Formats: sequence, structure tokens, C-alpha cells
Amino acid sequence: MATKPPSSLSALIEALRALPGVGPKSAQRIAYHLMQHDRSGAVRLGEALLGASQGLRHCERCNTFTEATICELCSDDTRDASVLCVVETPADQAMLEQTLTFRGLYFVLMGRLSPLDGIGPNDVHFDRLIRRAEDGVVKEVVLATNFTNEGEATAHYLAQMLKARGLSVSRLARGVPMGGELEYVDVGTIARAMVDRRTV
Amino acid sequence: MATKPPSSLSALIEALRALPGVGPKSAQRIAYHLMQHDRSGAVRLGEALLGASQGLRHCERCNTFTEATICELCSDDTRDASVLCVVETPADQAMLEQTLTFRGLYFVLMGRLSPLDGIGPNDVHFDRLIRRAEDGVVKEVVLATNFTNEGEATAHYLAQMLKARGLSVSRLARGVPMGGELEYVDVGTIARAMVDRRTV
Repeated sequence: MATKPPSSLSALIEALRALPGVGPKSAQRIAYHLMQHDRSGAVRLGEALLGASQGLRHCERCNTFTEATICELCSDDTRDASVLCVVETPADQAMLEQTLTFRGLYFVLMGRLSPLDGIGPNDVHFDRLIRRAEDGVVKEVVLATNFTNEGEATAHYLAQMLKARGLSVSRLARGVPMGGELEYVDVGTIARAMVDRRTV
Repeated sequence: MATKPPSSLSALIEALRALPGVGPKSAQRIAYHLMQHDRSGAVRLGEALLGASQGLRHCERCNTFTEATICELCSDDTRDASVLCVVETPADQAMLEQTLTFRGLYFVLMGRLSPLDGIGPNDVHFDRLIRRAEDGVVKEVVLATNFTNEGEATAHYLAQMLKARGLSVSRLARGVPMGGELEYVDVGTIARAMVDRRTV
């Protein structure tokens, strides 16, 4: 009979499977690597996981991760509270912030509609977004969900709900990306860029 | 300016980079996933990492991970102490145990020679293996390192050291794998199988 690994090792291998995309073999490899070569990294990661799990909550205004009740960005009264930009994840928000082109506030969905995965409007808390957008100050909602099938479906669904409540709704422009060579850009993108062409 | 993420979130993203093959983008994705969808998994993983980092040590006889001084397998006196099988990792040992073909004891290198990565004989603790093999009981050492370049180099190096000490040294047989179709097996393997052919 095969001898069982020590229980704290098998608990670690089992727990590592909580990581997305990690199956039994990778979990084993990761566990051996950490225990053999990087115990201090393992301890740091263990403490960071416990610290974040305990400390992080959702901002009551924009739904992003924060340690306070209202996140830093939502508390910044130099931002334009009349424009609300809807993104899927904090990473998307960070990208938009880096562009320095938007001075309004955000709402972070922390997900997207994905009927194939059984993720419907209730799972993404659209009710919270609607309540947020109906505060009387927000005039325009910019939909900045991804340009994937799920992101587009989410934007379409949200646009209908928000327009029905008298809000002005916009979407990030589509077109040929910076540095794009027409020969190598997909046809759908070029078609869209032609339809949305701008006078210069 | 981009707003900074909350400190426990950025600490988690940073700490996740201790995992092999995880860069900044994947660390961010993993952190969001765990915090949004699987906090209990994150807590379990955090506790498992701390538990294993604190509880696991190396078996004084075979060098594998154990919570005791001598691991379960080395303590089993029904095993044949005259044969010692050398493997690279506990995963390799587990595979061999599953075959039910070996009743001797093991030594787990927890690594292999890899000069290109700067891993030499001192880093893999060959001295401990030599001391273990020279206990007067061990008669034969079976080298079961991998059949990769590094594993072969390790086996070659160990064979020389062990033979110089009067021990009988063997290596796992090479040949065509079970279910192998000659057309799709590499030439090196077939050449080896021809040279090592057996009378039936």
C-alpha cells in the first residue's frame, strides 16, 4: 500500500486546489516547491491570505475591495460625481485610472453576466448599481465592461435598465487599436471602425 | 493618479508571486477570484500554508517531508532495509509505491543536479545520501531519478560515488512504454530498447 503523505502536507495540497486552474498534480508541485525552497514565501502568503480574507470588504458606494466603509476613490470629493463608469473588475478600473482621461466615479460589478456559467443579473448585484446610479447626482453612466461576448451582453442589459430610468448611457468607443495595422486587425473591428468613422 | 488598492489586497497580490509561474497579472486575478468568490478557500489555504510551514520537517533517514523525526515508511520494519531506492521528489516515491513492486526503503533527494541552474552536489545533500547508504545494511541502491538530462546526470554522478564505496548500484530499466506504438515512440527510446533487448 502507498504510504500517505504527512497530514499537514496533504492538507496543503488539498487547499491549494482553491487556486483557479490548479489541479491535483500542480497542487502537489506547488506544495513541494514552497516547502522545499520557499518557506518564508509560504508563511508570507499564508498570512496575506488570512489578513485579506479578514480585512477586505466591499465599498458601500462602488463595490470595489476596501478596508474602510467607503473606498479612497469614492471619498475623493474632487472627482465629478455626475459621471459613473461601470467596470467588471478592480483591474479594469486601475487601467482606466492610468489613462488619466476620466475624472468621475466608478461602480465595480465584480463580475459580468454569463448565462452559460449560470451567472444572471442577481449574481452580479445589478440592483446595487441601479440604486447607486439613481442617487440624483449621477447624470451619465459610462459602460466600460469588456468587449467580450459576456461584457457586451452585460453592457446591453445595463443600458436598457439605466435608460429606462432616464439616465444618459454611453459605451467606450470601439475601433482600430493604437499601432493597429489594418491587415492584421480582425474584420469585425474594421467593420465597426468604418461604421463609427469620425470627421477629422 | 491611479488610486492604490487597499494594503491587505496589495500584500496578497505581492505574496501570491511566491507561487511558481505566477506573475503580476495572474497574481491579481487569483487575488480577486479568492476574495470575491472563495474566501473560505482562501482562509483554508492560509491556514494550511502556516500549518505545513511550521509542522513539516525532513525525515532523518530518507529526507522526505514528515511531521515526525523518522517518517512512517522508514519506521516500517517489514520493509527490506538492504535495498535503497533514490528518487527526486516525494511524488516520484508515491508513483513507485503505487506499482507495488518495491519493498525496500527510499531516499528522497528533493531535487537533482542542474548545473545550468547553479544546483550542484552540495545543494542536493548527496553527503546525506552517502551516509545513509553506508549504514552497513544497505547492499543495493536503485537509482530512480527521472530520465531527463538532469535526472540522468544525477544518476551517473551518484552511481560513481556509490560504486566507489563498494555498493551495488542499479537503474530503472529503459525501453518502450506500455501501450507504446513504435511509429510514435522517439528514436532514442527505441535505440535503447534494442540495445537492452531481453531474451524471452
